[in-house]
Amino acid sequence: MRTVRFQIGEKVSYGLLEERGGERVVTEVSGETPGEFAPTKMVLPLEEVKLLAPVMPSKIVCVGLNYRDHAQEMDLPIPEEPLLFLKPPTAVVGPGDVVVMPPQSQDVQYEAELAFVISRQARKVSPENADKYIWGYTCFNDVTARDLQARDGQWSRAKGFDTFAPLGPWIESEVDPTDLEINCYLNDRRVQHSRTSEFIFSIPEILAYITEVMTLLPGDVVITGTPPGVGPVEDGDRVTVEIEGIGRLMNSFRR
Amino acid sequence: MRTVRFQIGEKVSYGLLEERGGERVVTEVSGETPGEFAPTKMVLPLEEVKLLAPVMPSKIVCVGLNYRDHAQEMDLPIPEEPLLFLKPPTAVVGPGDVVVMPPQSQDVQYEAELAFVISRQARKVSPENADKYIWGYTCFNDVTARDLQARDGQWSRAKGFDTFAPLGPWIESEVDPTDLEINCYLNDRRVQHSRTSEFIFSIPEILAYITEVMTLLPGDVVITGTPPGVGPVEDGDRVTVEIEGIGRLMNSFRR
Repeated sequence: MRTVRFQIGEKVSYGLLEERGGERVVTEVSGETPGEFAPTKMVLPLEEVKLLAPVMPSKIVCVGLNYRDHAQEMDLPIPEEPLLFLKPPTAVVGPGDVVVMPPQSQDVQYEAELAFVISRQARKVSPENADKYIWGYTCFNDVTARDLQARDGQWSRAKGFDTFAPLGPWIESEVDPTDLEINCYLNDRRVQHSRTSEFIFSIPEILAYITEVMTLLPGDVVITGTPPGVGPVEDGDRVTVEIEGIGRLMNSFRR
Repeated sequence: MRTVRFQIGEKVSYGLLEERGGERVVTEVSGETPGEFAPTKMVLPLEEVKLLAPVMPSKIVCVGLNYRDHAQEMDLPIPEEPLLFLKPPTAVVGPGDVVVMPPQSQDVQYEAELAFVISRQARKVSPENADKYIWGYTCFNDVTARDLQARDGQWSRAKGFDTFAPLGPWIESEVDPTDLEINCYLNDRRVQHSRTSEFIFSIPEILAYITEVMTLLPGDVVITGTPPGVGPVEDGDRVTVEIEGIGRLMNSFRR
């Protein structure tokens, strides 16, 4: 199942994306979480709807260094525990939206990541039960002002600018996330490439670790670290995060 | 004007706290922001309502080292810019609520802080216009697992545990925040003491700095740093944050 969120006029709705007779259509649903979803009578071709970020999280919890190949490339020790940080929900934009590079930074960089979305309140979840709390998976670009990240020490400002959290295009509920190819393209050039089988901490381990600290709410987003190859973006560039079995998230960058 | 938030049965409401004939009473209001508030017919003695955190923020933006006397005590240079970090909204508890000390930390500490609350969407606000975006002021305890703060480097876990953000008891809209006495009591012993005139960055400067990065939404909370004297809490301790002209926020701590 693929969940989208979209806007027609002033109205924002969730919808389910399906193939019907070779065409991709969106069926509007009522409700706020998968358990509540019920189809309405509105069915639209995908081309006719403006997709938004598929969810509006109450928080975005992020894991630092989590790809074994990235740690090796950087000659860093493999961490013993996930390193957590937060991005503010006001940074979220959707597929196709513009990322605005702020005047405070001269070194804005892309970071392709796999995101997972929480389906119900999660507190002290064991790794074995993780699946019951996960709505599905989507693409994320953890946009970072690298110069401010180094200067501040704390990463909240460098990663917290409005538009620095592209999310989408939809939530895929029927994919096994343990060995997916992840790619990032800067314009047409592939700049990041790895597989989620390189994860140092698995998704169930990450969910368990976070929920020993803080409660996750339905719609909250967790991002799982970036593979090797991060780098800077220039005014006018397009960045595409592509994850096997999920889809493609494209955003352009502007000063 | 003092805004409270309270619960009767399942229902959560905002209310205005007033003196009437020597008694403190709460008048329930409808609406979600000061501009929308309209009194209902319900008026209750303060003693009969269970006060909640006076607002449920979409984010809590925090400023690091911001008291000149604290910087001097620690022999730290005066920072040139505010250092920002985030606490998750799921950490919020209200006046009188219990702070739960997690098994992951052996060094949970109090940090008394002045908080301000945002009244309307704030983006690139100039210091001169700051007042138009501030609902009012309240007390905050930036509870921190000091051992995890040092170990992680990023502060999100150390400051992000559920219950680590006591907030309240109400939002005071009619106080000048520029020279208020701030005290913190560990049980009955005063452990922190300073004045907001020691601020390195004023509230208008902080608001301008944050909103050059991220949009603040109505109900968002900004905390302004802690004065000298932070220290550890033991199972069963009570911590009281007291700010002149605002009030007192008391929470007990439990393992």
